[in-house]
Amino acid sequence: MNEFALIDLIQSTCALHRPDVRIGIGDDAAAIDVPEGHELLICTDTLVAGRHFPINTRAEDIGWKSLAVNLSDLAAMGGTPAFALLALCLPDSDETWVRAFARGFSELASMHNVALIGGDTTRGPLAVTVTALGFAPRGRALRRSGAQVGDTIVVTGALGAAAAGLHFLELRPECGRAYRLDPNRFDHQCVTALDRPAPQIAQGIALRDYASSAIDISDGLAADLGHVLRLSETGADIELGLLPGWQALSEVLSLEQATRLVLSGGDDYVVLATVPPNRLQEAELAVKSTGAVLTTIGHVSAEPGLRIRDPQGNLIHVDKAGWDHFA
Amino acid sequence: MNEFALIDLIQSTCALHRPDVRIGIGDDAAAIDVPEGHELLICTDTLVAGRHFPINTRAEDIGWKSLAVNLSDLAAMGGTPAFALLALCLPDSDETWVRAFARGFSELASMHNVALIGGDTTRGPLAVTVTALGFAPRGRALRRSGAQVGDTIVVTGALGAAAAGLHFLELRPECGRAYRLDPNRFDHQCVTALDRPAPQIAQGIALRDYASSAIDISDGLAADLGHVLRLSETGADIELGLLPGWQALSEVLSLEQATRLVLSGGDDYVVLATVPPNRLQEAELAVKSTGAVLTTIGHVSAEPGLRIRDPQGNLIHVDKAGWDHFA
Repeated sequence: MNEFALIDLIQSTCALHRPDVRIGIGDDAAAIDVPEGHELLICTDTLVAGRHFPINTRAEDIGWKSLAVNLSDLAAMGGTPAFALLALCLPDSDETWVRAFARGFSELASMHNVALIGGDTTRGPLAVTVTALGFAPRGRALRRSGAQVGDTIVVTGALGAAAAGLHFLELRPECGRAYRLDPNRFDHQCVTALDRPAPQIAQGIALRDYASSAIDISDGLAADLGHVLRLSETGADIELGLLPGWQALSEVLSLEQATRLVLSGGDDYVVLATVPPNRLQEAELAVKSTGAVLTTIGHVSAEPGLRIRDPQGNLIHVDKAGWDHFA
Repeated sequence: MNEFALIDLIQSTCALHRPDVRIGIGDDAAAIDVPEGHELLICTDTLVAGRHFPINTRAEDIGWKSLAVNLSDLAAMGGTPAFALLALCLPDSDETWVRAFARGFSELASMHNVALIGGDTTRGPLAVTVTALGFAPRGRALRRSGAQVGDTIVVTGALGAAAAGLHFLELRPECGRAYRLDPNRFDHQCVTALDRPAPQIAQGIALRDYASSAIDISDGLAADLGHVLRLSETGADIELGLLPGWQALSEVLSLEQATRLVLSGGDDYVVLATVPPNRLQEAELAVKSTGAVLTTIGHVSAEPGLRIRDPQGNLIHVDKAGWDHFA
């Protein structure tokens, strides 16, 4: 398959009509309209084989995930996704692989009405760079800065599941991705969380009216909350027992391992936000209306640094890189 | 140097203020304003080490070129560049290399008032993916389709120079990029064309009022003109003797080699456009006012396919891949 056949295959698999796409795939650049009163949000993330996903990850899951990690960034801004570009670096032009990749990408794209409007295909070591674009009402995008002392810290979903999925796959390398995933098995649910993260788009939009700051958790709670605290010049107190996912992981893994995964496992792709206490109930209702649950995990404090307490009230130590100091 | 220090270094080297950047580097996504009455143009291109540039290319030249190839796509649409995102995949975090890369990127970015608004850094085989964004008055972007029978085919600069530069470097691999480039030496001029292509932004904008179609020549004249002809459902007749660069290359290379380089060498990054004959003089003046020369190289014909004639009037054969058939 030559480059043009490959582009045609991706284009036809990902076809999705949006009236605001004036020029789509096939010209030197795409041209889009931005609705009046809105600003354009844009982000880009690269997934490198063997680094951001195990090399035996299924092509359709790589396609899904390469878009998901970018939509998750838009979600954390309270953005509505609209368009994507795909820069695909492939070791060879394997039609079966490309078809499956495009199917996974398209599956998520169509769920969020995202039109693929351009990209590039090159020969080289497997890596996928997606650029995602979306909209927010002007001046209303959520920032990492803005957390205020006293704000409640909330998350839109479970932590540690994807990292546990990676752990389970490493325990049973002989399975690879060959076994049929059973939605009732906890370890399989974790592998699904790893391979098919669900960007919290509706939850990010729901939080837009209430949150003082937001970020998507991709590098682990400790590191990403750290960005919010640094930019907001505040500290935080977190209760380990409140972290969604910790209890379930503690039942199948050691307490220490479960704690490590929820705090710094990474690949969670849930939105963390800070909400003023007097807006919390409205925020919970808004997120509930999306079918998700907003979970309170702690609060923003005046004292710098992040303190995490176990159910007995003891401070626990986090040594995640990117994290300077912890009492 | 860790990831954050690396991002800080790139950000500080590429700092450029634009009032339409509402949120720049450092959040989950950037946020920008699009001016009223304009559409947003967007494109992305990846450069892979050893494939899109020789592995011994200087870091500053890789930085320049990774942005240049994208701005060239905007130029071909008649767009005004405004923003860029940089996804940088690096085998290691060599501060000297990153500093030089950012300097080259920034040098070109500041020439065109392009703000770096986001990106991603990953560890892996050296590859650079840039996403460039710009504006065009709504509905006025130049397309690859639109060429009409009888239109004059023009280019905004010389062909074959970059490919000749690569050829000269291959003849003297011992020099690498170590020798000091002498602007008076033809071979050095060709190496500069390879390493530092100048995107034809002003020329693209100048052509916006006159051209019926346009494309940037990145894969060689034959292949890229082929896209215009296919999308416009026309053919073309080209005079080899009119191609800017062919004469100069013929004097230092074999006639056959010079011909191959101007027709299919690639990496030219000049704009090819088709212009109705009654608008040609105005188009020439508009491009002249940018300091460049618009050169007529042939015309659009009703007969499908591309015919290229040497100065004796003989048809010559082009066997460039991506090109189906040639009489």
